[in-house]
Amino acid sequence: MIVIKVGGSLGIDYDAVCDDLASLIKSGQRAILVHGGSAETNLLSEKLGKPPRMVTSVSGYESRYTDRETLEIFEMVYCGKINKGIVERLQRLGINALGLSGIDGRIWEGIRKSTILIVENGKKRVLRDDYTGKVEKINLPLIRLLMENNFTIVLCPPAISYDGEAINVDGDRAAAMLAAALKVEKMIILSNVPGLLRDVKDESSLISEIRISEIEQYAHFAQGRMKKKVLGAVEAIREGVREVVFADARVRKPISSAMAGSGTRIH
Amino acid sequence: MIVIKVGGSLGIDYDAVCDDLASLIKSGQRAILVHGGSAETNLLSEKLGKPPRMVTSVSGYESRYTDRETLEIFEMVYCGKINKGIVERLQRLGINALGLSGIDGRIWEGIRKSTILIVENGKKRVLRDDYTGKVEKINLPLIRLLMENNFTIVLCPPAISYDGEAINVDGDRAAAMLAAALKVEKMIILSNVPGLLRDVKDESSLISEIRISEIEQYAHFAQGRMKKKVLGAVEAIREGVREVVFADARVRKPISSAMAGSGTRIH
Repeated sequence: MIVIKVGGSLGIDYDAVCDDLASLIKSGQRAILVHGGSAETNLLSEKLGKPPRMVTSVSGYESRYTDRETLEIFEMVYCGKINKGIVERLQRLGINALGLSGIDGRIWEGIRKSTILIVENGKKRVLRDDYTGKVEKINLPLIRLLMENNFTIVLCPPAISYDGEAINVDGDRAAAMLAAALKVEKMIILSNVPGLLRDVKDESSLISEIRISEIEQYAHFAQGRMKKKVLGAVEAIREGVREVVFADARVRKPISSAMAGSGTRIH
Repeated sequence: MIVIKVGGSLGIDYDAVCDDLASLIKSGQRAILVHGGSAETNLLSEKLGKPPRMVTSVSGYESRYTDRETLEIFEMVYCGKINKGIVERLQRLGINALGLSGIDGRIWEGIRKSTILIVENGKKRVLRDDYTGKVEKINLPLIRLLMENNFTIVLCPPAISYDGEAINVDGDRAAAMLAAALKVEKMIILSNVPGLLRDVKDESSLISEIRISEIEQYAHFAQGRMKKKVLGAVEAIREGVREVVFADARVRKPISSAMAGSGTRIH
C-alpha cells in the first residue's frame, strides 16, 4: 500500500501519472492518490478577477490567502476540474476510481487558523478571515471501507474544521498525515522538479538520499513550496512511514520510476 | 427512504434545503440528495468567455451543448462549488454527508450521444462533439455500502459513458433512474416554481395532483426545463416509484412542505 501525492504545478502530466497508476493497480499494487491544483487555481483566480495572494507566515512557510471567495474558486478547480478529470482518466483505464475531498465524510479533519501572522514587506501583520488550517484527524474507517470494496480513492483538499467549515490545507502535509495514519511503507510526492535540489536552478544537483537523522543538514536546501514537502516528509516518517520519495511528475511512468529509485529518498 | 432532487436555477435556497434535510435525517428519515447547478454554470461560462449554448432536440427537449471545455466548466460548478457547498452545510449541521458525481465509482453509467439532431431557426442540424448522454445503469452496491455506513450521499452529474467519458446528463431523469433502482416510495423534485402550472406566468395555476394514467392530459402544460421533469417523473413511476412531487425550493422547509402535500403530486 502506497500513498501518492501529485502536485498541481505547471508541467505535471496527469495522463502519465494515471497511466502508470492504472498499470500498478492492475498488477496488484494498492494505492491512494492525493492531488493538488495550485497552478490551475491561480489561472482561474486571474480569469475571475480575483488574483491569487500568496502569504508567508512568520515561520517562513508560504500559503494561499483563502477568503470565502477564494475557497470557492479553489473547490471548483480541485474538487471539480482536476479531481473529476483524474477519476475519468482512471475509469477509462479500467480502474474503479472514486473522487473525494477532505470534507466528504470528514476524511481530513482539523483546526482552522482563522488568524495567521504573516510577514509582508518585512513587517508582521495579522490576517483574518482566512479559511486555512491543518489536518489532525483522518476518517480511516471510510478509507478502509472504500478500499476493501476495491475503489481507488482520489483525494484532494479542502479539509473540514471541527466546526464544519471547509479549510484550505497543504496537500503534502495532509497526504503525509494520511500515509502515517494508514501506516504505509512508502509515500511518493510527485511535483515538477526531480526531487530536492542543492541548487534550485540546477536539476542535476539532486540529493538522492537523506537519512531522517541527517534531515537538519538538508532542510535548508528546500525553497518555496518544497519547504512544506520536507515538513510533510519529516512528519510522515516520525509517525511511522518508512520512506518518502520526492520525484518528478513530468516524466513517463513517474510512480514506477520513483519506486525504482529516482528522485530524493528520505528514510 | 426518499430521493430529493434540488435544481440549480436562480432563487433556490440551499440553506433552507439543507436545514430541512438535516432535521429530517435526524428524525430518522433516510434520503439521497441529487442537485443541479445550471444557473451558476451559465454565470461561470459567461465570465470565462464561453457563453452557454442551449439546444433543442427534434423531440422538443432543451439541453446544454456540452463540448469538452463546457464539460470542465460544468464539473467546476456542479462537482466543485455546489456539491462541496452542500456537503459543507450538511456537515456543519451534524450530518455525515459525502459528495459524489456520477463518474465516481460509476454511480451513474449510460450512453453518450455524440451526435444529436437539433432544431435551430426552424431547421434540423446535427451537432457533433457533444458530451451528453443518458443514465441507464446505477451502481447500487456503492450507494447501499455508503448508506449502510450512515453516510448521506450528495450526488450530481456528470455521469460516465460505457467508454469511460464524462457525460452531461439531465439531473431530473438521472435522479428518477436512481429512485427507481432504489425502489423508493417517494421522489421530490424541487425547483424555483411551486410545481406544474397550467399557466407558467401564474403561480396560482398550480396543478396539485395528477394520476399517472391521466398524464397525457397534463404533459402539455410543461414548458422548458419542466418538460424533462415530467419525463423523469413518468419514468420513475413506470419503474415502480409510488409518488413523485414537484415542489418549490424557494420556501422554508421545502422538503417537509412537499412531503406534507404542497406542490404537484404525480402518483
